[in-house]
Amino acid sequence: MPSTVAQKLIAAHLVEGTPDPGAEIGLRVDQTLTQDATGTMVMLELESMGLDRIRTELSVQYVDHNLLQTDEKNPDDHLFLQSAAERFGLWFSQAGNGVSHPVHQAHFGRPGALLIGSDSHTCAAGALGMLAIGVGGLEIAMAMAGQPLYVSMPEVWGVELTGTMPDWVSAKDVVLEMLRRHGVSGGVGRIIEYHGEGLAQLTAMDRHVIANMGAELGATATVFPADDAARDYLEAVGRGDQFERWEADEGAEYDHTEHIDLSQLEPLIAMPSSPGNVVTVASVAGEDVAQVVVGSSANPGLRDFAVVAEILEGRQIAHGLSLDINPTSREVLADLISGSWLGSLVGAGARIHQSGCMGCIGMGQAPASGRNSLRTMPRNFPGRSGTEEDAVWLCSPETAAAAALTGKITDPRTLEDSHDLAYPRPAMPEFYSKVDSMLTAPLPPAEAAQVELIKGPNISTLPDFSPVEDELRVPALLVMGDDVSTDEIMPAGSRVLPFRSNIPKIAEFSFTRIDETYPDRSREAEAGHVVLAGKNYGQGSSREHAVIAPRYLGLRAVIAVSFARIHWQNLANFGILPLEFADPADLEAASAGDEVVLEGIHDALREGGALHGTICGREVTLTHRLSSRQVDMVLAGGRIPLAAQEM
Amino acid sequence: MPSTVAQKLIAAHLVEGTPDPGAEIGLRVDQTLTQDATGTMVMLELESMGLDRIRTELSVQYVDHNLLQTDEKNPDDHLFLQSAAERFGLWFSQAGNGVSHPVHQAHFGRPGALLIGSDSHTCAAGALGMLAIGVGGLEIAMAMAGQPLYVSMPEVWGVELTGTMPDWVSAKDVVLEMLRRHGVSGGVGRIIEYHGEGLAQLTAMDRHVIANMGAELGATATVFPADDAARDYLEAVGRGDQFERWEADEGAEYDHTEHIDLSQLEPLIAMPSSPGNVVTVASVAGEDVAQVVVGSSANPGLRDFAVVAEILEGRQIAHGLSLDINPTSREVLADLISGSWLGSLVGAGARIHQSGCMGCIGMGQAPASGRNSLRTMPRNFPGRSGTEEDAVWLCSPETAAAAALTGKITDPRTLEDSHDLAYPRPAMPEFYSKVDSMLTAPLPPAEAAQVELIKGPNISTLPDFSPVEDELRVPALLVMGDDVSTDEIMPAGSRVLPFRSNIPKIAEFSFTRIDETYPDRSREAEAGHVVLAGKNYGQGSSREHAVIAPRYLGLRAVIAVSFARIHWQNLANFGILPLEFADPADLEAASAGDEVVLEGIHDALREGGALHGTICGREVTLTHRLSSRQVDMVLAGGRIPLAAQEM
Repeated sequence: MPSTVAQKLIAAHLVEGTPDPGAEIGLRVDQTLTQDATGTMVMLELESMGLDRIRTELSVQYVDHNLLQTDEKNPDDHLFLQSAAERFGLWFSQAGNGVSHPVHQAHFGRPGALLIGSDSHTCAAGALGMLAIGVGGLEIAMAMAGQPLYVSMPEVWGVELTGTMPDWVSAKDVVLEMLRRHGVSGGVGRIIEYHGEGLAQLTAMDRHVIANMGAELGATATVFPADDAARDYLEAVGRGDQFERWEADEGAEYDHTEHIDLSQLEPLIAMPSSPGNVVTVASVAGEDVAQVVVGSSANPGLRDFAVVAEILEGRQIAHGLSLDINPTSREVLADLISGSWLGSLVGAGARIHQSGCMGCIGMGQAPASGRNSLRTMPRNFPGRSGTEEDAVWLCSPETAAAAALTGKITDPRTLEDSHDLAYPRPAMPEFYSKVDSMLTAPLPPAEAAQVELIKGPNISTLPDFSPVEDELRVPALLVMGDDVSTDEIMPAGSRVLPFRSNIPKIAEFSFTRIDETYPDRSREAEAGHVVLAGKNYGQGSSREHAVIAPRYLGLRAVIAVSFARIHWQNLANFGILPLEFADPADLEAASAGDEVVLEGIHDALREGGALHGTICGREVTLTHRLSSRQVDMVLAGGRIPLAAQEM
Repeated sequence: MPSTVAQKLIAAHLVEGTPDPGAEIGLRVDQTLTQDATGTMVMLELESMGLDRIRTELSVQYVDHNLLQTDEKNPDDHLFLQSAAERFGLWFSQAGNGVSHPVHQAHFGRPGALLIGSDSHTCAAGALGMLAIGVGGLEIAMAMAGQPLYVSMPEVWGVELTGTMPDWVSAKDVVLEMLRRHGVSGGVGRIIEYHGEGLAQLTAMDRHVIANMGAELGATATVFPADDAARDYLEAVGRGDQFERWEADEGAEYDHTEHIDLSQLEPLIAMPSSPGNVVTVASVAGEDVAQVVVGSSANPGLRDFAVVAEILEGRQIAHGLSLDINPTSREVLADLISGSWLGSLVGAGARIHQSGCMGCIGMGQAPASGRNSLRTMPRNFPGRSGTEEDAVWLCSPETAAAAALTGKITDPRTLEDSHDLAYPRPAMPEFYSKVDSMLTAPLPPAEAAQVELIKGPNISTLPDFSPVEDELRVPALLVMGDDVSTDEIMPAGSRVLPFRSNIPKIAEFSFTRIDETYPDRSREAEAGHVVLAGKNYGQGSSREHAVIAPRYLGLRAVIAVSFARIHWQNLANFGILPLEFADPADLEAASAGDEVVLEGIHDALREGGALHGTICGREVTLTHRLSSRQVDMVLAGGRIPLAAQEM
């Protein structure tokens, strides 16, 4: 039977199960990536498991998130990660090398490989014909220990691209169009596979942009074929020998189909405060803009900076505006210098920041209160920028540059008349710069075995997690609406992230965006507690702290109308029951403080049936989608205690 | 009588008093600079005074300290400062333009001018033959309002430079040699004036390095003649027409003399944790180094980065080391790009940060716990880096580059053999880059008058300060011992400082180190209150918040055995009576909560005699040391209301 690229990639890695949509399958993992915000926990997990050396083809530990170093916690973590990478046999990408996803693509991307990463934008690697999935840190630890990745077999969503993209429209607008059509949960349970004649005009880095923000659609992965664009890219990064062609078979069928006529696209923008609030730039033109930020994994290519530089070359940014540039990586920075683009940006008035995620994860660059900030980044959830009353918009580099020039939201197409500007198409170098001396290969096993982990004063060991009780009689501390993001469950940002290796301390921030009293009330509820939520609970970042921290505070179950995929898995991994309302009306009836009673939990889980209980005396029926493997995990207290039992 | 440059500069600005060492003199102020950390309070003071437009030749508000923007407070402050600069007629240097002192020198430095700044390194401008003095914020506000600067006439310390500096020795080593000889208080009460044939080999930017760290010697100012080096510099920044020659007269005599034979210098380094702990680099060579930071006002010149770039060109920094580069300004960055130096730094593995003070004032770049960090910065007080257990060393760019290359403290002279490296002497451009579109000229008065101050939610207006009452019948809320520091009165640190523009909010921290109930009890005492203390009350930092905040909470008088000088002045400046016990035994007898009664205060102050009153019914005699000018101030409610009356 003719297969899609996604089906081929899954078939090539299948070690357990049958790839029928919805069924749990086990996949062999080739590569993993971890970043510093999630990686410390993964390394502590490897330490707890007593792993001697990783068993993947390659694993890379990046340092790209916590770069501000306002005290010793971040640099101490960097040292810890470096020592852990040496100890367990990982590659190590030092602070300053750049954002994990594009650096990974440049140095390790390989068509046909399966990559998982403890960062939700890992999916960006789909640009090269890889199957790349963002997962929780624990999945990474297990993969490093040689275990398969377990996922529900997604449906494959074929998106056919036709037509020619107009001037001033670029890859970001393609994925914003997908978000405009389908919103932030449109891709849940799906692999998005792009195909069609329109593909030819998208470079591998353009595809990276589109694949990256598949995360915002809630998709399990985004896949592009490994075609000439992938080959050209691999040659430009000096690894042409690793090219392998992966294309869909003639006549392959998709579970769902979609069509985008690229010629009909115009510049788009996501309004505050969701990547799903997409409108045309023209429809909001004229709004004042105080800040423009260019960078992040969502527009990481050299071209994405060069196009801004060429728009601004010889011009000045608007008076009073802050144009913040985060070069993706040391290598992109080197190319920006040698291509004369950096000088144009500086001359126009840009602030050049160090390479890394920076403002994208609230590490500096917070905008002033209530002032519009336009960013080429992937996310604009409320407060993610660091500013309480923020107004962050997401757009293409072209739209960002237009706003920098005029100080207002501006359809970049109008620059042709207003600034006598032809659409720039920056010429890319034949070979990208290679600045990789700070990207360190794994130590040989004998040497690695001698390495001691370097733990600063803020790095603590993982707490023990007890199994879920057979009977719960606990309060519902929170009753939340739809689309609660992990940023709301466990904020990131410079105040919180430094404690990522210190669970008792970071737990104090749990749910405080939603209700400041949560940590205190959780301690009062000595027998534990549950929280209730609407649809798509746990969307956004894959951070495990959003389950470990509330778990530490006594969270036993989340009862929601539906869950975001990664967070759902994280809950099970750490022994928190993810339960779903059979009747969403039961959520409407509930209030914070209601007593939730569930009995016979263990049997109900094992038997796979519904759980019957009460919320404030009202009978409710709850379902779960845990596989028998996950039930075992939850009943053991989570995946770590289970792994410990097995080892 | 033949005069020194310092004496000529003072004579040219003298408006009150006789310039005999130790006597109070009043000086006409030509220019002021404020940075963002101190500037917000200055602007609030201008607002309180009702100043319409500044009366200096020029005043500049820089944004170079709080650049990390981890939440809205810093960007809100930046907007406020921009609006205040527009309102009051200042130049405004936007975030990203760079460090105040070198930017000021490049754009506004003028031989013969008197500059004061609310930043202790303002003295750097002495490099151009200016008299430049760091002072408190209120002094700046008063100067902007047209008042003279009052200082004790310093002694003049002539430092003669002879001989030729060896390779691998640079300006930083000259001032480190001064610190090696005289320590951190060697310059107190003095103006340091460099002269002699050795000067000719020091460029204006070299002199900037030496003048900058005069602050570390405790000197009131550092002065260089305005000679050919100043002329060359002004021509290179495109302002050759502003050159004026200022040189010492033949036979001018100094109050103190010193001689440095430059040919005898070798690379020096200040060990942790004081700029006064200076030793030769050779004597500590071999120590492991984890971080090297290049930048700050202490080594801000293009040459100071270029020499590092040329040492590292085509080489790689040591494995695991972090080389952090803070380009001084957008203009230095532009020159580093066009001179091909930035590419060399990036290629060698450097992290390039935004322009500004950054790690020098603990804004990021904190080193890992207990790991050595070598910096080209001016200060290494314990914990200033942000790391609790830090180990920061201060050195020249040459010594910094050598450590970056080897990963150990290394005498840069040894690179000639170990790395086959001739001492690089980077060629400077004939003209420095001009990137000044974000350095905004004052608005014309009519336009300025229309500007509204933009105050984010964390910026409050200064409270009104009512005059001290003629009769006080109030409780003594605190009875304290000797040596209470301003850190105990008003703590600094990252929890408190973000509220520097919000007196009601920061007031909540007043005295809480001593007694947590103070803020609450102060509100209960509706008629105001006093506090009692022992000797040397108010020692330590000069921070004005330590008087403004308690004043806001109702503090009317401090009755102490004795006061620290600056805090005593601050109390009077903000209308709090600083009274002294005639008999210290009266303090012993007092308890918190005692009622203090003082009557006929106004007459007693005016007549200069003692005040008689009671504490808990016991009669006490209290004295004051206020000048008649200060009495007027206190009776008006402080220096701000007095200035407002006078306008």
